Amino acid sequence: MNEPRTRVRAGVNYTPSHGWFHSWRHVDWGAAREDLQAIASLGADHVRILPMWEILQPNRTYIDPSAVEDVARMVAIAGEAGLGASVDVFQGHLSSFDFVPAWLTSWHRRNLFTDAEVVAAEADLVRTLDAALAGIPAYEALTLGNEVNQFADEPHPTPMRIDSAQAGAWLRTLLGAGSPRGGARRALVHAAYDAIWFKDRHPFLPAHASRLGDLTVIHSWVFNGTAQRYGSSSTESRRLAEYLIELSAAFAEDPLRGVWLQEIGAPGNVIPEDEAGDFCRHSLLNAAGCASLRGVTWWCSHDIDEGLADFPPFEHRLGLFDTRGRVKPLGEAFAEVARDLRGCPAPEARTRAIVIPVDEEDVPVSRGALGPGGSVFEAWMERARAGERPALVTSRTAEDPADLTRRGIADAHTVAGGLSGSYSGVSDPSVPRMARP
Amino acid sequence: MNEPRTRVRAGVNYTPSHGWFHSWRHVDWGAAREDLQAIASLGADHVRILPMWEILQPNRTYIDPSAVEDVARMVAIAGEAGLGASVDVFQGHLSSFDFVPAWLTSWHRRNLFTDAEVVAAEADLVRTLDAALAGIPAYEALTLGNEVNQFADEPHPTPMRIDSAQAGAWLRTLLGAGSPRGGARRALVHAAYDAIWFKDRHPFLPAHASRLGDLTVIHSWVFNGTAQRYGSSSTESRRLAEYLIELSAAFAEDPLRGVWLQEIGAPGNVIPEDEAGDFCRHSLLNAAGCASLRGVTWWCSHDIDEGLADFPPFEHRLGLFDTRGRVKPLGEAFAEVARDLRGCPAPEARTRAIVIPVDEEDVPVSRGALGPGGSVFEAWMERARAGERPALVTSRTAEDPADLTRRGIADAHTVAGGLSGSYSGVSDPSVPRMARP
Repeated sequence: MNEPRTRVRAGVNYTPSHGWFHSWRHVDWGAAREDLQAIASLGADHVRILPMWEILQPNRTYIDPSAVEDVARMVAIAGEAGLGASVDVFQGHLSSFDFVPAWLTSWHRRNLFTDAEVVAAEADLVRTLDAALAGIPAYEALTLGNEVNQFADEPHPTPMRIDSAQAGAWLRTLLGAGSPRGGARRALVHAAYDAIWFKDRHPFLPAHASRLGDLTVIHSWVFNGTAQRYGSSSTESRRLAEYLIELSAAFAEDPLRGVWLQEIGAPGNVIPEDEAGDFCRHSLLNAAGCASLRGVTWWCSHDIDEGLADFPPFEHRLGLFDTRGRVKPLGEAFAEVARDLRGCPAPEARTRAIVIPVDEEDVPVSRGALGPGGSVFEAWMERARAGERPALVTSRTAEDPADLTRRGIADAHTVAGGLSGSYSGVSDPSVPRMARP
Repeated sequence: MNEPRTRVRAGVNYTPSHGWFHSWRHVDWGAAREDLQAIASLGADHVRILPMWEILQPNRTYIDPSAVEDVARMVAIAGEAGLGASVDVFQGHLSSFDFVPAWLTSWHRRNLFTDAEVVAAEADLVRTLDAALAGIPAYEALTLGNEVNQFADEPHPTPMRIDSAQAGAWLRTLLGAGSPRGGARRALVHAAYDAIWFKDRHPFLPAHASRLGDLTVIHSWVFNGTAQRYGSSSTESRRLAEYLIELSAAFAEDPLRGVWLQEIGAPGNVIPEDEAGDFCRHSLLNAAGCASLRGVTWWCSHDIDEGLADFPPFEHRLGLFDTRGRVKPLGEAFAEVARDLRGCPAPEARTRAIVIPVDEEDVPVSRGALGPGGSVFEAWMERARAGERPALVTSRTAEDPADLTRRGIADAHTVAGGLSGSYSGVSDPSVPRMARP
């Protein structure tokens, strides 16, 4: 995905229609084939596939070959449907549930980021999956795992404490574990939820997102306080993804580094169902206004059966298809946007930037100021509301004329009145990840 | 198993030869058939089968029909090998690993004993398994789960706190969840590790073990401090199981209530390998000296491949068969003992008893006194070393001549010098369950 942009790729996070991700225990290949063909029928060009870690690697030194085969077969079937496919390695966490292997929890509680034997096992799984998928044309990318950063900090109920150096070391080790990548189509990346941008003292850093791995990965969820504070159809909600992409560009050493908007969805706890289509259209087209954007992957393909319990209620209805397999109005909206994205040219460069104060290691002085309600966030959104397409730069870039020129920035504006803001992140008691800090 | 004793049944806890219990994710039926035939070839008459809870019930309101089918097929294959089969429902815990479903842990942390929705789901799984197995002639018993009591107390790293009333209510609810049992061959039971007998303030009580369910279930492991304190070939080690069975009889309201010695093994951390066969022979024949004993189930069938990591080291070598499927000397010893047990008549009744001081609810005044190193334990073992076959009675029985008569006890001896003892339980740092109090 890291070639210069000629279009914005549009794909879908694949949530199996029958039995959700539990279906990995014995895949119904007929159902999977139908699901993937349905996704392709909307004009999507790729899917993100999320296997379960405890099934792939039930013991630290045992990777189940048949589980690896299942992932490879799924990628191949996606290919037969005309889709590219990326695979996440460590789930880890999915929709409020933690599926961490037994060899890491309870009596065997070990730090998944710093324990040398554990990290060696993880590297082995990355290598094994990559090798198993290498021969499949549809295989496009490996992501280390779904928002693994959440295991390293509050509000996780039992965080595995690490510092930023340890977070960086873990990422570098595992991103180095894949095979050498000669081709342009395959990427090895990592993905974090937005604490990496907005939460002070969170061990994973903006520089990790923007500099490690073959692409920068963004997960944009307006239930992070944005929709609650500004409204479901506000500029802030509809440009949150765009803002995150621009924010990530400020920390990238290569101004042309590609960005993958890997997760964005319309959560019903803050976006009314009849606004979901508009939210999808506006959010994705705003994001496409970022020159760095290479692709978007909507969350998610299929609604979750009401017969499965204990999900945050809105998780059941994030799909483009309902539980009977029918395209929802949101699915039709996505199909239209996907078509528009395919023809979407690279936008004009942004020339005016808001400055992010950082220390000498490019760590933001206040990450709270970058999040919803924060002073940097609000300064950027104020310009956006005025019709501008602002960029962001770090204070170190702002002090370096050559770097500003390199990034095409003519005007870097420091927010007056100092930094303020603090990330609450989450505020819906129906969401376990929110309700149990 | 609750018919009057005409023989002692001898069986084996089935640990699959390939992939351990992870093999439930996709059973190799050929390998399972060979395993079960090999077990039968030793003269075993039954197996205990331990499926994994998270596979059977990956979501609180979703029981996977194909996983249930797998359990039923395993029971049927055991039957084809000439074996009866019992099934444990909630694993839960196996050999130091906790496999608790994601809907009970982490963000969803819920008390598996007291949460009404959780208990309803558990009852549903008991009913579903029982119904699925009811038509299979080999099906003999359902056990609620493997030592589920450990989740309710230290040293579990994250115990779910309950009191004894809640423990009893949980057992009564789930033991009431199976279908009405008309036949003599099928039992619904629960199983605890020995904290139930030896650990003061443990919420599960001796009366729960001895009065709830169709049989009393005993798990006897000499790594609980017995072998460490008294020696691997001591009377205490070789009569621990017998002692536990007699201890359980003291709390049974029906003196003839059957006992199932469901787990006993020769752990290499405290029993040298060249003593394992003798340990097996002595332990099981001593246990057979208890009139209440109906059956024994050795732990376990197959050694665990060294390629699987993070087990307590001795867990790899508890099997009757090695990892290449060859009968070990221990397996030959077991086969001999199994033959002897088949012809084993009911023993003479025991007439002399040691008294267990209890309160008005039959809770031992000191459970520590009942465990290795405790004053009641040592008084019983002193008589045993002198060649006696002592019984045990509660102090309430001792004060009730009619109850003594009913139990055939002519002489009840109160230990002089008061009660002493405290259960340390575990002392081997190689065992995670021991090392992390």
